[in-house]
Amino acid sequence: MASQSATDAHTQAVAALKAQEAALRYDHAALSNMSSDEERANTIFTRLRDAEVTSQWAKDGDLTNFAGMDFYGARKNGLGSPSEVWNAVRRMPKGALLHCHFDGTVDTKFLLEHAKKTKKMAMKADVRLSTADALWKATVEFLVLPEGAERSTKSIYTEEYVPGEWVSFEEARESFPYPHPYEMDGTDAEHHMPNFVSTSAPNGRLNGDKAPSNVAQDKGQAFDAYAHALMTLTPHQALPAITNSKQAWAKFQSTFGVIAGLIGYEPTLKAYTKELLRSHARDGISYTETRINFLTDFMVRADGTPNLDHSEWVRIFIEAVNEVKADFTDGSFVDAKIIYTTVRFIDNEKLRWYLEDCIMLKKLYPEWIVGFDLVGHEDPLLPLKVYIPELLRFQQRCKEEGLSIPFVFHAGETLEDGADADLNLYDAILLDTKRIGHGVSLARHPLLTDMVKEKDICIEICPISNQILGYTASICSHPSLLALLNRNVPVALSSDDPSIFENFGLSYDFYQLIISSQSTSLMSLATLARRSIRYTLVDDKTKEIMFADWDRRWNEFIAWFLKEYGHVLKQ
Amino acid sequence: MASQSATDAHTQAVAALKAQEAALRYDHAALSNMSSDEERANTIFTRLRDAEVTSQWAKDGDLTNFAGMDFYGARKNGLGSPSEVWNAVRRMPKGALLHCHFDGTVDTKFLLEHAKKTKKMAMKADVRLSTADALWKATVEFLVLPEGAERSTKSIYTEEYVPGEWVSFEEARESFPYPHPYEMDGTDAEHHMPNFVSTSAPNGRLNGDKAPSNVAQDKGQAFDAYAHALMTLTPHQALPAITNSKQAWAKFQSTFGVIAGLIGYEPTLKAYTKELLRSHARDGISYTETRINFLTDFMVRADGTPNLDHSEWVRIFIEAVNEVKADFTDGSFVDAKIIYTTVRFIDNEKLRWYLEDCIMLKKLYPEWIVGFDLVGHEDPLLPLKVYIPELLRFQQRCKEEGLSIPFVFHAGETLEDGADADLNLYDAILLDTKRIGHGVSLARHPLLTDMVKEKDICIEICPISNQILGYTASICSHPSLLALLNRNVPVALSSDDPSIFENFGLSYDFYQLIISSQSTSLMSLATLARRSIRYTLVDDKTKEIMFADWDRRWNEFIAWFLKEYGHVLKQ
Repeated sequence: MASQSATDAHTQAVAALKAQEAALRYDHAALSNMSSDEERANTIFTRLRDAEVTSQWAKDGDLTNFAGMDFYGARKNGLGSPSEVWNAVRRMPKGALLHCHFDGTVDTKFLLEHAKKTKKMAMKADVRLSTADALWKATVEFLVLPEGAERSTKSIYTEEYVPGEWVSFEEARESFPYPHPYEMDGTDAEHHMPNFVSTSAPNGRLNGDKAPSNVAQDKGQAFDAYAHALMTLTPHQALPAITNSKQAWAKFQSTFGVIAGLIGYEPTLKAYTKELLRSHARDGISYTETRINFLTDFMVRADGTPNLDHSEWVRIFIEAVNEVKADFTDGSFVDAKIIYTTVRFIDNEKLRWYLEDCIMLKKLYPEWIVGFDLVGHEDPLLPLKVYIPELLRFQQRCKEEGLSIPFVFHAGETLEDGADADLNLYDAILLDTKRIGHGVSLARHPLLTDMVKEKDICIEICPISNQILGYTASICSHPSLLALLNRNVPVALSSDDPSIFENFGLSYDFYQLIISSQSTSLMSLATLARRSIRYTLVDDKTKEIMFADWDRRWNEFIAWFLKEYGHVLKQ
Repeated sequence: MASQSATDAHTQAVAALKAQEAALRYDHAALSNMSSDEERANTIFTRLRDAEVTSQWAKDGDLTNFAGMDFYGARKNGLGSPSEVWNAVRRMPKGALLHCHFDGTVDTKFLLEHAKKTKKMAMKADVRLSTADALWKATVEFLVLPEGAERSTKSIYTEEYVPGEWVSFEEARESFPYPHPYEMDGTDAEHHMPNFVSTSAPNGRLNGDKAPSNVAQDKGQAFDAYAHALMTLTPHQALPAITNSKQAWAKFQSTFGVIAGLIGYEPTLKAYTKELLRSHARDGISYTETRINFLTDFMVRADGTPNLDHSEWVRIFIEAVNEVKADFTDGSFVDAKIIYTTVRFIDNEKLRWYLEDCIMLKKLYPEWIVGFDLVGHEDPLLPLKVYIPELLRFQQRCKEEGLSIPFVFHAGETLEDGADADLNLYDAILLDTKRIGHGVSLARHPLLTDMVKEKDICIEICPISNQILGYTASICSHPSLLALLNRNVPVALSSDDPSIFENFGLSYDFYQLIISSQSTSLMSLATLARRSIRYTLVDDKTKEIMFADWDRRWNEFIAWFLKEYGHVLKQ
């Protein structure tokens, strides 16, 4: 055997190298400046995490589950159910959510609850829903129709239905003739749709001899589950296996058309916005910058007329945010702003229209429009390089008008290497993007990685979204997340489209990181949370308020955590 | 619209940034110094590649396939069948294969062909193979028994069979009572097992009224397919879905026990070694450093006695290599060396035995033993840090004895972040490893990445192995491959265990890279091939010979390529 001193020297050299590398990390400053309470909490948290990995994710003989596994598999294995780590993650203050698409943020059951209360809500399909096969192949849409608008009285589930005609949502819902899609495979609906089926629902759903009133209720629930299945990527019996990004996007894109008609109605829009803020507040998120897709010209007013224009959407958004803020009488910070977006399949002429529309809205509501972005499936859609003339003109126009509408571009949400979606990173950076949405392919670019760090551009990484949309098999093999974090490139974890993925808030993404990475600690999550505030697009004064609010909440969290788990250190 | 000059300035800035980043890449020197023939070939090759992506991997409306997709899916979509890119990749000289496990390198059908000719070959199972269920749950082993050794005459497929007793391989093969496992799902066997079922096999296999001789032949073929299924990860009807690394390793590890008894027989061992070199030569590989696992104490001699020790394995290896070399009378370079390995579940005491065994073999065959490694599933097995005392002692012993046996450690073949398998990278580097096997987690370590580059440590990346064993969903999302290549960290693509994965040679891994990455060109592949020679563990003089041989073959390849495809440039 080598002398003890040689072994010791090697061990010390390894420790020194690890320390040297750890000093480059994003959480190094936080770990070097812990209060004694934070130090205790951090130690306990790591212990709880390690225990939870062992008891829940790496059980002896369990080859199916692993820490950080795919989101739906993880949910099946209990992710989101109370556990020590989950409870703590859920409770900790998480700062700002910087990347979520407005129409993909709130639980779809909220939209369904509102649709059920909206008498004028109508439904249509492009085929007769007379077979189970048609049910899942159809393009289904919802819309609130004006008073007196014509509606077919034919059942959408029969051969008499004329495809494309509107029918009553209420009738379609209550006469839904198909089984509950989340029960088709014999598993429990609650299991697949957490929080979706009311816990007060009758247990007799699988029972043959139910009272007629229950039958209607069951049909309604089965319909709700069907609508839920149309609006989410949550696996169910009739959803074909998704094995790659192209398949995931095909299903993903179809969900927005279903959601559009439910959300695009003034009273729902306002209620949805309020729920967005409230649900984020419940998850410890103080502030949200949400990307609103202004591609549609108009939404539907309360009276059913379809002429609610962009400036009125923003007005409603502001009203909703202000009403929620007024409700928070405890002094907690809560707020949201808008990033104006349109979709990257338009031409330059149309883009100019949207850019001018954005400028118009910014002038109307200068505090509320904080950035501009182009969204959509990067691989097949148009690259930023196509839009350079108009994007440069926009920068010039903003300068002339004295407006600050920075770009916050999606870029590098791709597996391609050297193709257009990957090359969007170059254009985004040289267009002075303030943040980058996704940047899945960024860590492959050594020079761009350094530039992003130097220019202090924050990368909005959406681990669960990236996994579900086929860019990584799990958070553990994400092409950029850990590489960027370890290089101290600014990263903000984000949820992207939780309506569709069901990773509501930030707790799921935070949990997947902490459970899968032994290098990550409570202080790492705290660093991510606090830093997210730094990369918001608000003025410095507002940031100061947010920081102070976060610090206060963090201290409260640490106090709660030690009260709850302090005993662990004594064990 | 912005002025043309502003747009031009942006476009130029993007081009400059791209060029600046490209200058950091591994292929930059090669691309900057092309001969005019290389320049033409490179342009044509990129054009053929782009066309093949469009025609084969990104067909309109095809959501199933994509360039760089999982290996078995890709094979189903034609990977390995003649195509312009495949033919060129297959034909190009690929230099050295630096990472393959000896008992996992040659096509398993080669072993089966030899088993069929080995009268003394026996088979056993730990359960009666009397049901299809048992067939797939059993642990099956093969072994050549000495003359006169007792064998059960009971059929292994009946209730009379006593589990654990040896039966005749020939009888078991010819009386196999189950259907061809690759036909169970109604698909074509050839499809799933390329080159496995002889193309001259009778087509009447699915036909009910076959002649008795065909029945025996069919039973034998079905048995061969069963044995093939036991030795590979190739999907078939009875193989449960593999969704993560733990499941993949469970199946992967089981294959070696089946292979062991077929390969561990002197005549087969020698023939296998020759086939290893020859099959690599056919794939354009001139030189192989193969890791031989010396965990087993003895193999079986030609006369069936099981006392063939380590030094005799090496002797047989050398004889085989020399015989193949003698066959190559055209002056082409062909050679192979041994990296001594044992498995990382042993204790330090046992490790010392292996290290001394390695030293003994090095003294006996100084040219042939070129390195030492510890192998096995890194996540659950022991980390390098456990073995430091003995590894340091070994270095000291080698110094005293004047022997050069560098470490070439597996490290970072993991999805874990900050756990032991990931931390193996620190130990490996500080133990002066000459190369690193896998390094899947390396790119997440900024300091180690820089150190590896500075110390000129080559990373043996095995993209298809990493995908099949659950470390990445496809080559496109590999956590380190492109990140390291773009930083010009030395990388050698490797096959790892092609017997089991069926990515024989290097063509499959090269193809997956070139087809999935638009940044990769013919000259990139040439750089990888030529560079692999640099990181071999032979002396400088031999390297010079290899380089010269590669250059000659490369020029021949370019001449062939231009003759074959020169017309493309004129189109």
